[in-house]
Amino acid sequence: MNHNYCVIMCGGVGSRFWPFSRNSRPKQFLDFFGTGRSLLQLTVDRILPLIPAENIILVTNAAYADIIREQLPDILPGNILLEPARRNTAPCICWAAHHIQSLDPEAVIVTLPSDHLILREEEFRKVLEEGLRFVAADDRLLTIGLNPASPHTGYGYIQIGRPVADWPGISKVKSFTEKPDLEMAKVFVESGEFYWNSGMFLWSATSILRAFARYDQETASLFNDGIPFYGTPRESAFIEEAFPKAPSISIDYAIMEKADNVFVKTADLGWSDLGSWKALYETAPRDKRGNITQGCRVLTNDCHNSVFAVRGDKVVVADGLDGYIVAENENALLIYPMSEEQKIRNVVNDVKNLFGDKYI
Amino acid sequence: MNHNYCVIMCGGVGSRFWPFSRNSRPKQFLDFFGTGRSLLQLTVDRILPLIPAENIILVTNAAYADIIREQLPDILPGNILLEPARRNTAPCICWAAHHIQSLDPEAVIVTLPSDHLILREEEFRKVLEEGLRFVAADDRLLTIGLNPASPHTGYGYIQIGRPVADWPGISKVKSFTEKPDLEMAKVFVESGEFYWNSGMFLWSATSILRAFARYDQETASLFNDGIPFYGTPRESAFIEEAFPKAPSISIDYAIMEKADNVFVKTADLGWSDLGSWKALYETAPRDKRGNITQGCRVLTNDCHNSVFAVRGDKVVVADGLDGYIVAENENALLIYPMSEEQKIRNVVNDVKNLFGDKYI
Repeated sequence: MNHNYCVIMCGGVGSRFWPFSRNSRPKQFLDFFGTGRSLLQLTVDRILPLIPAENIILVTNAAYADIIREQLPDILPGNILLEPARRNTAPCICWAAHHIQSLDPEAVIVTLPSDHLILREEEFRKVLEEGLRFVAADDRLLTIGLNPASPHTGYGYIQIGRPVADWPGISKVKSFTEKPDLEMAKVFVESGEFYWNSGMFLWSATSILRAFARYDQETASLFNDGIPFYGTPRESAFIEEAFPKAPSISIDYAIMEKADNVFVKTADLGWSDLGSWKALYETAPRDKRGNITQGCRVLTNDCHNSVFAVRGDKVVVADGLDGYIVAENENALLIYPMSEEQKIRNVVNDVKNLFGDKYI
Repeated sequence: MNHNYCVIMCGGVGSRFWPFSRNSRPKQFLDFFGTGRSLLQLTVDRILPLIPAENIILVTNAAYADIIREQLPDILPGNILLEPARRNTAPCICWAAHHIQSLDPEAVIVTLPSDHLILREEEFRKVLEEGLRFVAADDRLLTIGLNPASPHTGYGYIQIGRPVADWPGISKVKSFTEKPDLEMAKVFVESGEFYWNSGMFLWSATSILRAFARYDQETASLFNDGIPFYGTPRESAFIEEAFPKAPSISIDYAIMEKADNVFVKTADLGWSDLGSWKALYETAPRDKRGNITQGCRVLTNDCHNSVFAVRGDKVVVADGLDGYIVAENENALLIYPMSEEQKIRNVVNDVKNLFGDKYI
């Protein structure tokens, strides 16, 4: 029996890529790079050589059940856990751990976001394979820390502590840090002690449930009540009732920043969280004028360093733009300076308030 | 019997408003100002108090027959003349004159473009009424010259000569001038002798056909062959055969610049030929930041002096644009500096050559 499981969290909304992403089709479901595969599909493709489809569990919002079945026909319906309400990562992870433990008490789990880019896939699987062995061997919580390619102010950082003997690249975590300012980020990167927090986690089902019991009793107690139902036909009825009562809290805040058995494996995976247009811009291939084109035909004479992400087999003719995002999807068109992209979240809110839900 | 007729020329393509206008739906068929009426419909609305619907003849390309029937259900099908090929204005006018003369040998005709703006409609009808009487009284060709509101370099100019006694505001035409450069245009306007060429013409059917016979024998002879057929069921078969053989020549060049009985009535009609985005920009109502919005909802923080003409109930979020045209229709999006708008024609050609007809 294969005790390795993968939980892919794919319930996020993500308004930063509006209007390319929509409430009805968030970022993870988009064919981001025009390769024919969505970020979620790429995530599954990437893990499949390591973990068989029957051991891959998707946790998502109930609203996305149809998209997921459409995009991932090979994942069994029973492996798709549908959250009846939007909460943060801790409730999602706690439920998934219970569900998996009910199937396999010896399970070890790698938990992944569904909307990141990883260029070095072989290395990625090697790192996870080693990590799974590390957490199977003892009561440990492991996170993946990435070599910081730049003093990025949009990421959290993990400070490494004492290395673990016989496990190359694995250290005790000294501290987690929220997004730093640029000066601080530069100090972090130069120190060699800080790594980007990837949001990828490894642990045994037993270890993470034990950690919940110790550090987040509210969530633990809520989901412990479901132990008679996990893995049975009554699981979803229980979740329907219990899940909305869960606190909205991140796994970092609920567990990782508090537990004393947290480790980090450092790696260089060619990773980006694709958290913003700028991140996409820095990742995707550009033409000789520094422009990126996605899903459309573009004719420009004097445009530079811009992203053209327009859906629906359109032609875009533009001139005089430098450093712009031109993004269109369905009934919404965005023409925005990339340097102002942090405002897009607020703009989406304004659009919703002024014009209604149908545009977001 | 009412001998007054109106010919509305509505077969033009007009690529300067791409992608707002399309090959399949040129400018004259668009609801340009969001009033619920297309420019063509507005043209008909404007003339109807003067000339009854049964005396209004539309000349257009066969490709637009359906749009015209849809937009103008009150115009009899027999009053829509369908050109089987694209030619310039002279063949169109020659055919229409023959057609009308076959119905009414005493007809006097006002010929109008279908895609212009006229703000002073009462004055417009007063001017045309007087003009119709002027051309009914004698063998004269009359054009309308407009008070030049600015030294516009996109218009042709008419220089007035000797005034005609007893016909206030009507003069002999001294010369027609093509689009001048700015310096010349300023001299024109200051002189008080030059008026914008409106492209509106008045004459009796007899007079214009006589002028064709004198000054454009090729066109005259071609359409004279159809005299047995005009106004009969065999007219369209004749036209199908003959029209494509007509030379592509403008009425100005074929007749007006050559004839010696050409007069001009000057007027102030609040007129624009809406020949470009800039012309539209100068005409339509702007918000406090100088922006114009057509057919969409726009959210901008820092955009100025721009046109947002996006079709299909969309929201547009933009920032940092000054003096831009943002126009979208079906599968084409244009984001272009208004100062460069003279390049749009070429761009449309490039789009056609690079990506195909379906985008234009």
